[in-house]
Amino acid sequence: MDIRQQRKLDHIRQALALDDGPLSNGFNDVRLLHDALPTVDFRAVDLSVPWMGKRLTMPLLINAITGGTSLVTEINRRLARLAARNGVAVAVGSQAAALRDPRLRDSYRVMRDENPDGVVFANVNPNTPAEKALEAVNMLEADGLQVHLNPAQELAMAEGDRDFRHWSGNIAELVRHCPVPLIVKEVGAGISMETAKRLLDLGVRCIDVGGAGGTNFVAIELRRQGQSIPAFESWGIPTAASLAETVWTVESRQPSGDKATVIASGGIRDGWEAAKALSMGASLVGIAGAPLKGLLGGSPGAFSPSGNAEGDKAAQGWIDSFRHALQVNLALTGSSRVADLRNRPCLLTGALRDWLDLRGVPAAFWARRSGEE
Amino acid sequence: MDIRQQRKLDHIRQALALDDGPLSNGFNDVRLLHDALPTVDFRAVDLSVPWMGKRLTMPLLINAITGGTSLVTEINRRLARLAARNGVAVAVGSQAAALRDPRLRDSYRVMRDENPDGVVFANVNPNTPAEKALEAVNMLEADGLQVHLNPAQELAMAEGDRDFRHWSGNIAELVRHCPVPLIVKEVGAGISMETAKRLLDLGVRCIDVGGAGGTNFVAIELRRQGQSIPAFESWGIPTAASLAETVWTVESRQPSGDKATVIASGGIRDGWEAAKALSMGASLVGIAGAPLKGLLGGSPGAFSPSGNAEGDKAAQGWIDSFRHALQVNLALTGSSRVADLRNRPCLLTGALRDWLDLRGVPAAFWARRSGEE
Amino acid sequence: MDIRQQRKLDHIRQALALDDGPLSNGFNDVRLLHDALPTVDFRAVDLSVPWMGKRLTMPLLINAITGGTSLVTEINRRLARLAARNGVAVAVGSQAAALRDPRLRDSYRVMRDENPDGVVFANVNPNTPAEKALEAVNMLEADGLQVHLNPAQELAMAEGDRDFRHWSGNIAELVRHCPVPLIVKEVGAGISMETAKRLLDLGVRCIDVGGAGGTNFVAIELRRQGQSIPAFESWGIPTAASLAETVWTVESRQPSGDKATVIASGGIRDGWEAAKALSMGASLVGIAGAPLKGLLGGSPGAFSPSGNAEGDKAAQGWIDSFRHALQVNLALTGSSRVADLRNRPCLLTGALRDWLDLRGVPAAFWARRSGEE
Amino acid sequence: MDIRQQRKLDHIRQALALDDGPLSNGFNDVRLLHDALPTVDFRAVDLSVPWMGKRLTMPLLINAITGGTSLVTEINRRLARLAARNGVAVAVGSQAAALRDPRLRDSYRVMRDENPDGVVFANVNPNTPAEKALEAVNMLEADGLQVHLNPAQELAMAEGDRDFRHWSGNIAELVRHCPVPLIVKEVGAGISMETAKRLLDLGVRCIDVGGAGGTNFVAIELRRQGQSIPAFESWGIPTAASLAETVWTVESRQPSGDKATVIASGGIRDGWEAAKALSMGASLVGIAGAPLKGLLGGSPGAFSPSGNAEGDKAAQGWIDSFRHALQVNLALTGSSRVADLRNRPCLLTGALRDWLDLRGVPAAFWARRSGEE
Ligand SMILES: Cc1cc2nc3c(=O)[nH]c(=O)nc-3n(C[C@H](O)[C@H](O)[C@H](O)COP(=O)(O)O)c2cc1C
Ligand SMILES: Cc1cc2nc3c(=O)[nH]c(=O)nc-3n(C[C@H](O)[C@H](O)[C@H](O)COP(=O)(O)O)c2cc1C
Ligand SMILES: Cc1cc2nc3c(=O)[nH]c(=O)nc-3n(C[C@H](O)[C@H](O)[C@H](O)COP(=O)(O)O)c2cc1C
Ligand SMILES: Cc1cc2nc3c(=O)[nH]c(=O)nc-3n(C[C@H](O)[C@H](O)[C@H](O)COP(=O)(O)O)c2cc1C
Repeated sequence: MDIRQQRKLDHIRQALALDDGPLSNGFNDVRLLHDALPTVDFRAVDLSVPWMGKRLTMPLLINAITGGTSLVTEINRRLARLAARNGVAVAVGSQAAALRDPRLRDSYRVMRDENPDGVVFANVNPNTPAEKALEAVNMLEADGLQVHLNPAQELAMAEGDRDFRHWSGNIAELVRHCPVPLIVKEVGAGISMETAKRLLDLGVRCIDVGGAGGTNFVAIELRRQGQSIPAFESWGIPTAASLAETVWTVESRQPSGDKATVIASGGIRDGWEAAKALSMGASLVGIAGAPLKGLLGGSPGAFSPSGNAEGDKAAQGWIDSFRHALQVNLALTGSSRVADLRNRPCLLTGALRDWLDLRGVPAAFWARRSGEE
Repeated sequence: MDIRQQRKLDHIRQALALDDGPLSNGFNDVRLLHDALPTVDFRAVDLSVPWMGKRLTMPLLINAITGGTSLVTEINRRLARLAARNGVAVAVGSQAAALRDPRLRDSYRVMRDENPDGVVFANVNPNTPAEKALEAVNMLEADGLQVHLNPAQELAMAEGDRDFRHWSGNIAELVRHCPVPLIVKEVGAGISMETAKRLLDLGVRCIDVGGAGGTNFVAIELRRQGQSIPAFESWGIPTAASLAETVWTVESRQPSGDKATVIASGGIRDGWEAAKALSMGASLVGIAGAPLKGLLGGSPGAFSPSGNAEGDKAAQGWIDSFRHALQVNLALTGSSRVADLRNRPCLLTGALRDWLDLRGVPAAFWARRSGEE
Repeated sequence: MDIRQQRKLDHIRQALALDDGPLSNGFNDVRLLHDALPTVDFRAVDLSVPWMGKRLTMPLLINAITGGTSLVTEINRRLARLAARNGVAVAVGSQAAALRDPRLRDSYRVMRDENPDGVVFANVNPNTPAEKALEAVNMLEADGLQVHLNPAQELAMAEGDRDFRHWSGNIAELVRHCPVPLIVKEVGAGISMETAKRLLDLGVRCIDVGGAGGTNFVAIELRRQGQSIPAFESWGIPTAASLAETVWTVESRQPSGDKATVIASGGIRDGWEAAKALSMGASLVGIAGAPLKGLLGGSPGAFSPSGNAEGDKAAQGWIDSFRHALQVNLALTGSSRVADLRNRPCLLTGALRDWLDLRGVPAAFWARRSGEE
Repeated sequence: MDIRQQRKLDHIRQALALDDGPLSNGFNDVRLLHDALPTVDFRAVDLSVPWMGKRLTMPLLINAITGGTSLVTEINRRLARLAARNGVAVAVGSQAAALRDPRLRDSYRVMRDENPDGVVFANVNPNTPAEKALEAVNMLEADGLQVHLNPAQELAMAEGDRDFRHWSGNIAELVRHCPVPLIVKEVGAGISMETAKRLLDLGVRCIDVGGAGGTNFVAIELRRQGQSIPAFESWGIPTAASLAETVWTVESRQPSGDKATVIASGGIRDGWEAAKALSMGASLVGIAGAPLKGLLGGSPGAFSPSGNAEGDKAAQGWIDSFRHALQVNLALTGSSRVADLRNRPCLLTGALRDWLDLRGVPAAFWARRSGEE
């Protein structure tokens, strides 16, 4: 097993061993408001959302995790089945390995084979040339292409690629040539207002904020080297702040019809937090750590790539709770569809509000709207 | 005993077993201001308030608790005697059972029999047709009709009625036909500004905010199923925030004479918190958990529907302390009547103030007024 | 010994047994600003302040404590000697007892006998008729007359006088007839902006804010009855808030030359807090609890009215530290006289600032001034 | 060994024994913002900064520590080698001793001998006459002259010089006659906006804020006397607040080209905090406590002036981590040079923001800028 394949397993092991944080994802500072007089029928609450002609049963994306060695094929198979069974979107991990070595394609391709009608996203790094990116999309008959931005991880990783000069230019290229929606995503350090603006200027139409508060790739990489640097591990923009900054950038620069899409991710762990993210303006909620820990047992010692039936049950149970929580949140805010959440008051309080004040983002935008007008 | 009757007892048992919260009622963030030079005589401080031609000795309502099985008749008898002896208002629990089955009427009717001259409120759910609601009022010769809004409870309850589509329309009907004041109340998740506005638009003239921070019906229902969901149990608007939002809605929409009446309830536990609520603009303070725990002993093991003399003494002692605390608060703010409290400075600080700022409710409205002008 | 004399001893015993609080005095939220380039000579820093033709060596008042039974004569003698030796002001406890019974005069008169040239204040309750108040002043050849406002204490005390209707009118009378400065003081619950305004309107020219955070008379009276009521014991305006409100009332109503004088008291315990109070606008700092605990040992078991040499030494040590701290504060803010502190930036932060914002008192008034102009 | 020489050793011993604080340096309230799309090559990130024709490899100053007795010559030699080896600036401790007694010059001169091409600062007290200050500069062929302001230390020190009347005037003299840049520095109590203004008015062109939160000279002097005075030890302006006040004073009074230089120091302990200080506007970051504790072992018992190889290794390790952290911070904010940090958003939050609001310093100045324009 070469170092890259070993790294895949290390990432999973460390991700299972580490807790979320140390930064909070910020959703503790977000509150939805109870509607004592909802006008909905709970059984008729509709969680489904569209994606490019397909339909998800709810706005959940099992975010990019793995691929690139046969040792993780089983994991991807089980993630694919979970996604297929529940009608949610799913992404593969970085396909760089398969683009280099065609023998590794199966570990990704299983995602589509097990989930032929579902929404599946391809995943490449920002240095990937357009034709290679197309190859990644075709490999999966993908419904979208994720480009991950992970500079903090690259700097924390001993063997990281630390030359970021060509990322911007290459993303502009990918925008021009990608036949499916391009999703630019962080992996746990977040997108700022300034970065969001630049991405929109490059033509990007979908941003996954990938904020801090959940899976922590700086910590993962440092642990792999037997290190710990608290200040480095606290780097990044908490997800709720990053989401507010990104949504506000889109709102203030694209006030009219055709707005860019925002995906919320980074430490979101249940339907209660997801409902807050959707109310703040996300179209989809991406989660990697929670289903992964469900599937593989949570305790790193117990980790076995082939998994076990209990893991599948735990992951399914997690999704069932997630869906139920979302339904309850819709009903209790008087929303019959997911989009209604965006017209409900949403309070961004405490440290999050101070952050937004400093940045010139008006918290009143979320706090005072109502579905009435 | 059918499931509905069993539920009545379960509710009481769980209510006794659970602590208030986990949300705070928010009154820790409210402060009345000391007047070092009061111009009142403590013995002449007047706590009495009017209700539809009757007079309460103080602005306290023992809020809706029970009824519907002969097993709780004794509880209602003792609550009625407590209310009668002290000249405070009292409400029965939901009368749905008696409207379905006339044999269950006695468990409610005891409230009036034991308290012939007092202020007694009937209680129905928001799907109750107007003629049934009238029946509920007549059953008690009631001085008011409470309609409870409890969507969170319905969703937490396994057997809950989760179709809320007809609540609004039916409330408008009840407004038209109810011969006594209609009181729309939450049961522990609070009323927002938007909901208050809609209730006023439906013609409702009295709102009991029933905010979060006290008896927690989501927790009660989940415990009955052996469950616990922290995020769900933290749902709702803390009472102080809900009260401020509702009072402000009334103030800003009905600035002139004939204002709607607001009742404060949800986790209010003594006269000190009650004084704050009255100063914020409540006309009456509703409390269920505290007298119930006084009466039935607080420790769930000790619960016996027929109660005991110690419980009566504890409940009476609680009311005596409540009255004394109210008197002290009036005197130390230089108030000779309850209504004077509304002209005294009242500081809404900390997280409560942040909440109100976000919502566009000016805390200065309460903080800077004085009885001078 | 009659009940009133017994009460005097009880008060002292309970004051020694209880800690300050539970409210904080608020000075933790106040910060003076370091001047790295002071232009003063530390040895030439001048702490002295004038009082009606006399001069205090520093702006300290040992506030009203006792008198009225021969059992406390020794305490007053020692307080008087402490004041005389250090050139600070001192007040006697309420002289009501001596006005009723001339035989009790000696317990007060000792204050003047032991301190013939010092600044000594008489002390009466707000129902004292003008001619009786004059008698109190003459009894001590007093340099000022304190009138104490203590409604919370009266309400907490079983035997309290709870009719406050005549206080205002009588204070106006005292203003007219008192030949020495009249000082209206609270005893630990504070003066609000509204009360300060009314006192100024009554003609009062000196207010001692007596805020919450130190000696707690509600707690003292409740303990005497074996009771404890946390909400009651938390009543009152913290000293720093009360001081800011009162200073601002004077500033905004009397912007020109002849301003009323403000005394800061209530839980002030050392020269560091005193410096903050003086910078906020106090002319004098009153302290009762700290010297009393120094003198009588702090531990209630050890309390003996006749005291002991160690107590005198502890009290003197406390005063020495107090003076030194004041000198250091002056030097490190570049102040050569006490009055200079009022031209130094003083930051009212945290909960105190929120309080003042709510009340319309501009914290910038203190935070941005400098001695430059 | 005379008392002054003994004091030098005492200072070092106490500095090693004491922790930083008790005040926080305030940088916990400062956050740099992640740039997920940096356009830099990590290996090309340039940390070097100019100083008067020389070049530092990074903006670090090992701040003034010692000299004046042969017992510390070895310490200065090792500090000089550390500085030389790493290309950072270094300052000697106060040269007063050598100006009085030429035999003590060697303990300072070693700084230049071991570091012939480096940036070395001389150090005098603010009462030093111009010709003596010149002597101090010449003694070291110094690249700058530090004048330390330490009034709090002088007041805490039993034998302190407490007459500050001539400091201002003498600084104006030094400005006129000093051939190298004059750096006025505090030693741990900070520079306020008012003091910064006065320094600029005196012609000072370089201010080292020397704020609170790190080495605490009040605590050091009190411990030498076996004392502890918490309020005194909490005196001073936290470094982050002092830095913001000083930078803002320079910005608002010298908006155009030729701005005064600000050095950040006081409790800065690693490159993560240093990056924040540089982003806030510092040109150089001064640190004394951290390299000293590295060099001499941290545990006071182990202190030996001649040190040991482990100390050198620890100090070098600390510098290596410092440099790496700075590089990471530049890369992750998309900065290729140190100066770029000043165009990156920098959030001054929490208590620091409240401080600045009170003082009229707009936190938005730092929070909303971007490198785009
Ligand atoms: C083991 C593991 C491997 C991952 N590999 C990738 C990857 O190859 N590409 C990518 O874009 N994100 C990758 N991610 C990041 C996730 O997609 C997601 O952005 C991140 O985990 C934050 O979400 P979370 O807090 O819900 O886990 C990985 C996450 C985990 C846990
Ligand atoms: C055992 C129990 C049963 C209740 N049943 C009813 C009810 O039938 N109808 C109703 O409107 N509220 C009901 N309530 C809610 C109370 O009236 C009140 O709104 C709620 O308890 C919050 O107030 P508290 O925190 O003072 O208890 C019940 C409360 C308890 C404790
Ligand atoms: C034992 C004791 C007796 C007191 N008696 C009086 C009194 O008779 N009249 C009065 O105006 N204040 C009286 N006070 C109140 C003090 O003057 C002062 O206002 C109060 O103690 C708050 O200040 P402190 O926190 O520094 O103690 C008394 C205080 C104590 C401790
Ligand atoms: C042992 C010791 C001696 C010091 N001596 C001097 C000195 O002579 N002159 C001076 O300007 N600063 C002196 N300082 C202060 C430092 O230069 C610096 O301002 C202060 O330690 C705060 O920075 P820090 O928190 O990084 O240590 C000394 C510091 C230490 C630890």
